[in-house]
Amino acid sequence: MNQSPAPSPSTRGPADHDIRDQIVAAANEHFSQYGYAKTTVSDLAKAIGFSKAYIYKFFDSKQAIGEAICSSCLAKIVEAVEEAINEQGLSSTERFRRLVKTLITTGIDLFFNDRKLYDIAAFSASERWPSSQVYDARIKQFVVQVVREGRESGEFERKTPLDETVEAIHLTLRPFVNPLLLQYSLDHVEVAPTLTANLILRSLMP
Amino acid sequence: MNQSPAPSPSTRGPADHDIRDQIVAAANEHFSQYGYAKTTVSDLAKAIGFSKAYIYKFFDSKQAIGEAICSSCLAKIVEAVEEAINEQGLSSTERFRRLVKTLITTGIDLFFNDRKLYDIAAFSASERWPSSQVYDARIKQFVVQVVREGRESGEFERKTPLDETVEAIHLTLRPFVNPLLLQYSLDHVEVAPTLTANLILRSLMP
Repeated sequence: MNQSPAPSPSTRGPADHDIRDQIVAAANEHFSQYGYAKTTVSDLAKAIGFSKAYIYKFFDSKQAIGEAICSSCLAKIVEAVEEAINEQGLSSTERFRRLVKTLITTGIDLFFNDRKLYDIAAFSASERWPSSQVYDARIKQFVVQVVREGRESGEFERKTPLDETVEAIHLTLRPFVNPLLLQYSLDHVEVAPTLTANLILRSLMP
Repeated sequence: MNQSPAPSPSTRGPADHDIRDQIVAAANEHFSQYGYAKTTVSDLAKAIGFSKAYIYKFFDSKQAIGEAICSSCLAKIVEAVEEAINEQGLSSTERFRRLVKTLITTGIDLFFNDRKLYDIAAFSASERWPSSQVYDARIKQFVVQVVREGRESGEFERKTPLDETVEAIHLTLRPFVNPLLLQYSLDHVEVAPTLTANLILRSLMP
């Protein structure tokens, strides 16, 4: 179906959205099979049955498609973390433990169950795509949230400037958050959530 | 000089030692130029002017030569750390800061000034060569030494089991100690020594 339908103005929004989703889903499948690096937009166009020009109406480049895939994949990790740490009635210590544990387990899950998708995420981290920068910033925000709440409740120390504390925690979590490093940290994922969280929590004691 | 001298029994020890050094030095140069992965023992033999069989009298495999190179390169980092932390009259806090800083700066130095050698070190880390395992164990020993002294002097807390503390610190330092991770941590090497050391030191407070 080598068609290039021109959406009518009245349905442009939703139709465009659907077609973008369709391209992303097909690209996801194609990348999963052949890898991101080896796939060209022409390959994608052929596989999906759209013209290359039509795909370029929705995405500026192959990277833009890759970013859309990464964003949706990283959004799942963000969602899992959000759910884990925002449960009612938890202490800040418990929220922090959940933050670390969920980050590591969802990352590992992605690595083992969707390796090609993981490879795109690793590539996006090495190339500093906006999707991976946004993800990184979101994780830092979670750290800010938990540390700030813990300081307000008196559970965590308040002497160290918040910025420094957050930056240092973010650095410490990098081997398990950044897909590039995670692949070299697999030997440690059993013990790391507890050991690392404990060390950081000791550093946060008032 | 395609010679294969058979060392006389009386001088075997030192002569063997010299020839080993000669092979390692030549291999180092060859690897530096062509890379470890692309070099075979035959290439090395040709370049050095020894027979392949003669090289195998001294080293079981290319890996064994690579390990000898790695060991001597990692020994330099170990020596630098040893010198930095064992200066008289330092507090344990100061020793710990020096440990972190020296590890990061010597690692970075190797990365930027001897990239091919660094690549062998990274390869050895990914393949878990004994040379890199020995290095890793040595770094952990340094951590044990500083933490134990700090506990004995009352500078550091003593509630957490020593093993747990050391393991957690070792994990936290991995991005800057392990050559595989260091290459992805270069953006952070300016701030990491201070931020990471500060976080760990806060976690060690009594």
